[in-house]
Amino acid sequence: MLTYTHSHRVRYRECDPMGVVYHTHVLDWFEAARTEALREAGLPYKDVEASGIIMPVVEATVRYHASVFYDDLVEVECRIEGVGVRVPIDYQVRRQDEDDVLISGRVTLCFVDPERRRPVAPPEVFREALS
Amino acid sequence: MLTYTHSHRVRYRECDPMGVVYHTHVLDWFEAARTEALREAGLPYKDVEASGIIMPVVEATVRYHASVFYDDLVEVECRIEGVGVRVPIDYQVRRQDEDDVLISGRVTLCFVDPERRRPVAPPEVFREALS
Amino acid sequence: MLTYTHSHRVRYRECDPMGVVYHTHVLDWFEAARTEALREAGLPYKDVEASGIIMPVVEATVRYHASVFYDDLVEVECRIEGVGVRVPIDYQVRRQDEDDVLISGRVTLCFVDPERRRPVAPPEVFREALS
Amino acid sequence: MLTYTHSHRVRYRECDPMGVVYHTHVLDWFEAARTEALREAGLPYKDVEASGIIMPVVEATVRYHASVFYDDLVEVECRIEGVGVRVPIDYQVRRQDEDDVLISGRVTLCFVDPERRRPVAPPEVFREALS
Repeated sequence: MLTYTHSHRVRYRECDPMGVVYHTHVLDWFEAARTEALREAGLPYKDVEASGIIMPVVEATVRYHASVFYDDLVEVECRIEGVGVRVPIDYQVRRQDEDDVLISGRVTLCFVDPERRRPVAPPEVFREALS
Repeated sequence: MLTYTHSHRVRYRECDPMGVVYHTHVLDWFEAARTEALREAGLPYKDVEASGIIMPVVEATVRYHASVFYDDLVEVECRIEGVGVRVPIDYQVRRQDEDDVLISGRVTLCFVDPERRRPVAPPEVFREALS
Repeated sequence: MLTYTHSHRVRYRECDPMGVVYHTHVLDWFEAARTEALREAGLPYKDVEASGIIMPVVEATVRYHASVFYDDLVEVECRIEGVGVRVPIDYQVRRQDEDDVLISGRVTLCFVDPERRRPVAPPEVFREALS
Repeated sequence: MLTYTHSHRVRYRECDPMGVVYHTHVLDWFEAARTEALREAGLPYKDVEASGIIMPVVEATVRYHASVFYDDLVEVECRIEGVGVRVPIDYQVRRQDEDDVLISGRVTLCFVDPERRRPVAPPEVFREALS
């Protein structure tokens, strides 16, 4: 299992006329969090692509429990439990130094051969890094 | 029940180094589709906010079944079955004149009093327009 | 010379806590306008890339004269005067059926060989289409 | 005069089918850089708005000298020379530990009274902080 916490300062461009984060931007935070989690595990995504595999998103779910405001400093915790052809990754967003989960979600990636656009087994290094 | 189909031309800015639509932008298409669906039903969202109610997104799920490419002309069908405090809206994305559903999803909105940030009952005009 | 007017409905995701369009999104409108202008001229950008040339942006300037609001229906007029190694394209944004220019700008593209990442002369079809 | 350097890791969502940063996202980096520059100077933008003044962008220019790639770690230097009704801010983007300026630009903000949507003189604290 792999966990990682990514910090993010909420930007003006991410906030809408309600004065809160517009819902789509949270998926950007999730991308940053899993990218840094993989780097930390010795698997920078850039190297994954260089090795001839791509990892598109096949499913995403986000639940918005409470509003996040402009200039909030949030922590995006991501957790990877295991790896198959699919890699589900779970996320929880909290305000720094607070316990309440403001947003939670899961984004599932898939290992794909970019030439044939077909799912493939995960590279061995992935299994090792996450076990 | 209310259904509406919104057309969208895939833009360069929406495509990633894999040469396909980056997953987050699909939520933007869903926003455009439901906004036009509500306008068609005589309920422009701008008027909803002017009447003192906001409709934040409380949950979103997207499933990516197949790739969508740069310059594709897609049709985003949205369907609103009914209205309570929550308004779940379903979406299906197809390439124009094709049957395959490339992407499907659900985005659930909620009627909220912006002052108290509390859920409220749907305005009567909503019930009428959608029945 | 080539002129083209692209219509755009301002989306919620484009508006910020000031209740107006956040400045970066205007460049997205410019992209849509020039893409449709080129298509109209028989030069869809997808075909340009397929012919082995890319057209990155080398310079962009935008001037914001007045606010644009949520749900406004705007017209983005784009104008291509001529074509060299660089292609400067001018834009003016107006609210539909109004005369005031709310936003103006110029985005300059360049013809580039993607292998060598070097500027190249414009394809002959471009010169013909724009003269 | 005020200078500040903001670090940014280039994200997948920011890159286009050419494999490089799509031009619009650079304006997001500029926003992050000036926001942190103002915070460092004791003028968090959130407090500026709370004091009854907004600072919309009135003009933006960006020049793209060289490509920036996925996963690059860039440094965005911003420089504020002085403050009048308008606040021009200059930016230079470099790859970490490299000298070449890859992108440069200027974004000009304006002090505005949000009620009357009229320019106003800069608050005294701004003059002090930047002198």
